[in-house]
Amino acid sequence: MIGRLNHVAIAVPDLKAAAAQYADTLGAKVGAPQDEPDHGVTVVFIELPNTKIELLYPLGEASPINGFLEKNPAGGIHHICYEVDDILAARDRLKAQGARVLGSGEPKIGAHGKPVLFLHPKDFNGTLIELEQV
Amino acid sequence: MIGRLNHVAIAVPDLKAAAAQYADTLGAKVGAPQDEPDHGVTVVFIELPNTKIELLYPLGEASPINGFLEKNPAGGIHHICYEVDDILAARDRLKAQGARVLGSGEPKIGAHGKPVLFLHPKDFNGTLIELEQV
Repeated sequence: MIGRLNHVAIAVPDLKAAAAQYADTLGAKVGAPQDEPDHGVTVVFIELPNTKIELLYPLGEASPINGFLEKNPAGGIHHICYEVDDILAARDRLKAQGARVLGSGEPKIGAHGKPVLFLHPKDFNGTLIELEQV
Repeated sequence: MIGRLNHVAIAVPDLKAAAAQYADTLGAKVGAPQDEPDHGVTVVFIELPNTKIELLYPLGEASPINGFLEKNPAGGIHHICYEVDDILAARDRLKAQGARVLGSGEPKIGAHGKPVLFLHPKDFNGTLIELEQV
């Protein structure tokens, strides 16, 4: 069912510094910051040859990243995203097997303009998993 | 400098259950458990089309995963691994820019039989980064 690893998302306490570090110290291809007001984040994409790293920084007081950074002031890996062909079929299969889907259970349009769902980290080895239909 | 994302490593409290979940619930291609006594881990590889997930489980009382699972009993993302062409050149570049390399600073032979180094998570947004020469 799951396909490619679409991205690894890392929450960072200083987006400018983190982007500069990936560009200068790690020598990666780093994009420009993009505000995603619907998701409460500002994102910088690191383009690797086979996948992406998403640096996440809070945008606004209701950002879903605020709580994570309070618990992890240095930052940390926030979630990983697997691609699926059919997000509703994936959701129904997961729910039938007892996995919990976060929120209403209906896919939302994610930061890439595609339908996404998040799975409960307690059901997946402490790992927050995003599913993105591609 | 950094190339492909070689893998994402997830420490798990129950390797058999985690492997079965990736195979049955998430429908991924899951390998057989491999003991890596030199690294104090038993590993299961999940083969995705573009990269790998490594499920890590402690092997022995001195396993480097024991402390992580004590702090994170449900499991969690342990590290991410970026590929580099020349690990000594990468190390020297990183050290010259103030990043800390864990351990002696000399590459060790990693679980894939290739030279690896780990970078201090406090220098990289709370993310433990492995570099692997490919």
